[in-house]
Amino acid sequence: MKVAICQFEPRLGEAEENRKRMVELLASIDAELVVLPELAVSGYNFASPKQLLSLAEEAEGKTAEALTSLAKKTGARYVVGIPEASGGKLYNSAIMVGPQGLEGSYRKVHLFYKEKEFFQSGEAPFALIDVDGVKIGLLICFDHMFPEAARTLALKGAQIICHPSNLVLPEYGQLTSRVRALENRVFWLLANRTGREKGAAGELSYTGASQIVSCDGSLLARAQGSEKGANEIIYADIDPRKAKNKAVTALNDLFEDRRPAFYSL
Amino acid sequence: MKVAICQFEPRLGEAEENRKRMVELLASIDAELVVLPELAVSGYNFASPKQLLSLAEEAEGKTAEALTSLAKKTGARYVVGIPEASGGKLYNSAIMVGPQGLEGSYRKVHLFYKEKEFFQSGEAPFALIDVDGVKIGLLICFDHMFPEAARTLALKGAQIICHPSNLVLPEYGQLTSRVRALENRVFWLLANRTGREKGAAGELSYTGASQIVSCDGSLLARAQGSEKGANEIIYADIDPRKAKNKAVTALNDLFEDRRPAFYSL
Repeated sequence: MKVAICQFEPRLGEAEENRKRMVELLASIDAELVVLPELAVSGYNFASPKQLLSLAEEAEGKTAEALTSLAKKTGARYVVGIPEASGGKLYNSAIMVGPQGLEGSYRKVHLFYKEKEFFQSGEAPFALIDVDGVKIGLLICFDHMFPEAARTLALKGAQIICHPSNLVLPEYGQLTSRVRALENRVFWLLANRTGREKGAAGELSYTGASQIVSCDGSLLARAQGSEKGANEIIYADIDPRKAKNKAVTALNDLFEDRRPAFYSL
Repeated sequence: MKVAICQFEPRLGEAEENRKRMVELLASIDAELVVLPELAVSGYNFASPKQLLSLAEEAEGKTAEALTSLAKKTGARYVVGIPEASGGKLYNSAIMVGPQGLEGSYRKVHLFYKEKEFFQSGEAPFALIDVDGVKIGLLICFDHMFPEAARTLALKGAQIICHPSNLVLPEYGQLTSRVRALENRVFWLLANRTGREKGAAGELSYTGASQIVSCDGSLLARAQGSEKGANEIIYADIDPRKAKNKAVTALNDLFEDRRPAFYSL
C-alpha cells in the first residue's frame, strides 16, 4: 500500500486559497492514502473565535467536496484537518475522504492550549474506518501525548494511525509517534506542518519533520524540520497486514502479554 | 536528590563473586539512590532452570544483607535485580534496600522470551515505595513496552521510576523510557547492562546505554552502549518535586486532560 504525507503549510485565514493549493499539490501525489496536517485548510493560530467561525465548515463541506472530486480521478483517500462546525459547536476535526465522498471523521479529544478556548472537545470514543479491509484510526496532534488514545484504537484493530498535527513542542510528537507505533505494532503517519503563525496563542513555530513510521517503530520516511515552510511530500510502501502481528519474539505477543488486571485507568 | 546508575556487568552464575564486585563498586558512588541492572546478582541467560534455582535467593537474602551493610555506611538506597525464590516459585525481581534493610520489592509482571520458562510472572499490582516522602516505583526491563505499567505507577503518584534492565532489542528501551518519562512527567532511571551471554535464550548481546531521564523526557545522563562490558557509573541531580507538576502548558495538565471514559483496557 503506497502511503504519503503532504507536509502542507496553509496560510492562516485563507481557506479558499488553501483548499485550491492543497488540491493542486495532492493531484501530483501517487499514493493510496495521503495525510495532511491538522487544520490544514484554515491555519491554526486564529486571532479570535470570530475568525475561526468564519473558516469553519461541516464535515461534508467544501473541503470534503473538493477532495471527493480529486479522489474520483486519483482513487486515493485523503485525511485532512478542518475546523468543523456542527450543531452550533466548533470542533478541531480530521476527515477522511475517498472517491465515494466522506468515509469517516474524528473530533479531537485532547485539546492543546488555546484550542480549549476555541473548540469543543470530541464527545465520541475513538473509532476505526475500514478502507478496503484495512482498519484506520485517526488522531490529532496532542492526542499523541496520551498513550491510551493510540492503545484504544490498536486494541480495536487499527493497523494504520493517521495523525494530522501542528506540533509546536520540541520534537515530542516525533518521539512519541515512534513509541506508539512500536508499543502497538501499528503504522503511524504523522503529518505535521512548517512555518510560523501569530495569533491568540502568541507566535507559534511549527516543527515539520513529518514521519512515516513502521509497525516496529522504525522510520520509513521523514520530512525536513525546517521552519521556512516549504511544502514537502514523503512516501512509503507499507504492508498493513504486518500490523496484525503483535509478536516481538517467538514467546511474546504484545497484546496477549498485557495484564489489564494490574492496570489503572 | 543525587541519583546514579551503576551499569554493572555480572558474570553469569557467579552470584557470590558478583555481589562482592557490586558492593566494591557501589561503595565508591556518592548518591542517595543507585539503580543496578536486572538480575545483576546472577546474570541473565541461564543454561537451565537448575542453574537458576542454584542462584535464587529470598528478597531478604544475601544481596539485601550485603547492601544493607553498605547502606548503613553510605546512607544510600540501592535498587537491584535478583532471582527471587519464594514459596517454591521463582520470580524475576527487583529489591530496594536502605540502611534499615529491605524497603520494597517488585516481581516482574511482563516476562520476556525464555523468562516465561524460568520464572513465574508477578502476581501483585504495581506498587510504590515511599522513601523520605518521595514516591518510587519499580519496573523491570520488558515492562517498558507496556505503557500501562508506568502509567499505573504514575497515576498512583510515582515521582521516580527505577528500571533495572537487561535490554537486548535495538534501543527500544532507551526510546520508550524517554516517552514514559515525558507522558507521565516522572523521572526515569534505566539501568541496563553490557556484554554478552550464552544460555537457554541463545547468545544475547546487551545494549548498555543506561539513561537518567528528566520528567520532560530529556536525557540527563547516558552511559556507553558498548558491548565490551566495562562497568560504568552515571549521575544526575534531580528534584523529584517537579514530577508532581503535570503541566505542559498553562492550560494543559497531562493528568487532568485525560479522558478515561474513552479509553480501553
